[in-house]
Amino acid sequence: MGKPLILVTNDDGITAPGLRALVSYMKEIGDVVVVAPDSPQSGMGHAITLDSTLYSKKMQVDLSHTGTEEYSCSGTPADCVKLGLQELLERKPDICVSGINHGSNSSINVIYSGTMSAAIEAGIEGVPAIGFSLCDYNWEADFAPSEKYVKKIVREALKFGIPKGVVLNVNIPKLPKKEIKGIKVCRQAKANWKEKFDKRTNPMGKDYYWLTGEFELLDKGEDTDEWALANGYISVVPTQFDLTAHHAIQDINNWNLK
Amino acid sequence: MGKPLILVTNDDGITAPGLRALVSYMKEIGDVVVVAPDSPQSGMGHAITLDSTLYSKKMQVDLSHTGTEEYSCSGTPADCVKLGLQELLERKPDICVSGINHGSNSSINVIYSGTMSAAIEAGIEGVPAIGFSLCDYNWEADFAPSEKYVKKIVREALKFGIPKGVVLNVNIPKLPKKEIKGIKVCRQAKANWKEKFDKRTNPMGKDYYWLTGEFELLDKGEDTDEWALANGYISVVPTQFDLTAHHAIQDINNWNLK
Repeated sequence: MGKPLILVTNDDGITAPGLRALVSYMKEIGDVVVVAPDSPQSGMGHAITLDSTLYSKKMQVDLSHTGTEEYSCSGTPADCVKLGLQELLERKPDICVSGINHGSNSSINVIYSGTMSAAIEAGIEGVPAIGFSLCDYNWEADFAPSEKYVKKIVREALKFGIPKGVVLNVNIPKLPKKEIKGIKVCRQAKANWKEKFDKRTNPMGKDYYWLTGEFELLDKGEDTDEWALANGYISVVPTQFDLTAHHAIQDINNWNLK
Repeated sequence: MGKPLILVTNDDGITAPGLRALVSYMKEIGDVVVVAPDSPQSGMGHAITLDSTLYSKKMQVDLSHTGTEEYSCSGTPADCVKLGLQELLERKPDICVSGINHGSNSSINVIYSGTMSAAIEAGIEGVPAIGFSLCDYNWEADFAPSEKYVKKIVREALKFGIPKGVVLNVNIPKLPKKEIKGIKVCRQAKANWKEKFDKRTNPMGKDYYWLTGEFELLDKGEDTDEWALANGYISVVPTQFDLTAHHAIQDINNWNLK
């Protein structure tokens, strides 16, 4: 059996240190092809490029990683996966890994996450997929403590397979290696952002806004990703793209829709 | 009791005929405030604007709709809802309706949909929300056959309330009024897009791609939105933003993650 083929992508862009870390870990496990955005795409959710053209460029970002095929793409993370699977890779990859994101994608952040949208796009197309995020927005964040766990999760996913219709959302706490207690499989915590718009006036006298906000955890459960992260664990949330709220079908059927 | 306050938004932009139709229907039910993108935002998924500024402009698109407050916003559909709820509306609306989209958002399209991302954003913030889409991409599409059903669904939602954590994804078949058979509450059909990239060369000799594709239905169920639409029904899918695949937690717990 040959080495597994691994598609690596992210939303922070092809030069992001988190992607470079992930590429170096994945090279120990299989053959790596990178297809990643040519510029940062944070907060892009599951956007795709419909009204505009896509450019792709073969490139070599890190000369120490010879042998790794790398392509930048002008589109969103979901575009990168679509283009990679359809046009750039010679065969269907055995797994797609996205990240390592600079910043958390736990709880409700999964909805806004470009990192996870790339993983979900791969999942939709039948490729086992995992998104990795480190809870540290710093561009110089220390990814080394995550190495052992990232490799373990990918190896287990390749061994057991990920259930159909499911992709994994992995978040890593910002902790030194010896303080990480292990891995917990969790559910997505209930949370939202309490928005605050910072209203300013531009030099031409026109008002504009910056979107800011505070994260608001609405969930006291000890089986959630937020609990795991706050208690020193890496969280793994199995995430699905069938959004049907099956439990609510009966409720709505009680309405008078005749 | 006063009239309900209704936030109307969409992803096709504030001048889209589908939004104008929805505004005219909602004015019969309550007080309407429109906050909608100043340009088309199709395929934006749940993108939000993090690295850029947002502009908003009070405007009057349709002079016959006097009394309706309207704001355009330079951001994505999710941005419009955030800005509307935090900055522009005087109180929390009783319901948020998004659409009527020019084109289907059934089955897997919900993932890429700006229309539904606006509704989901409202749902996350605790506002009952519904996304409406007509399965006709034409800018001159005939929205009239949907009027009775759109009003019925909104009135029932206001009467019964939408279950917490759930937003409704409503799709309307492209049919004359007398051929619409009624409303069916459904689950999201399993489907994906078989991508095809149309590769071209620009006048400067550089290759680029257009994303195209064919919809591929992978589901033979008669309880799905695709079945309902193909059989002359309006589909209503209760949709959730807790993406946890609860059934998969045990599977992943069987991996060796120690």
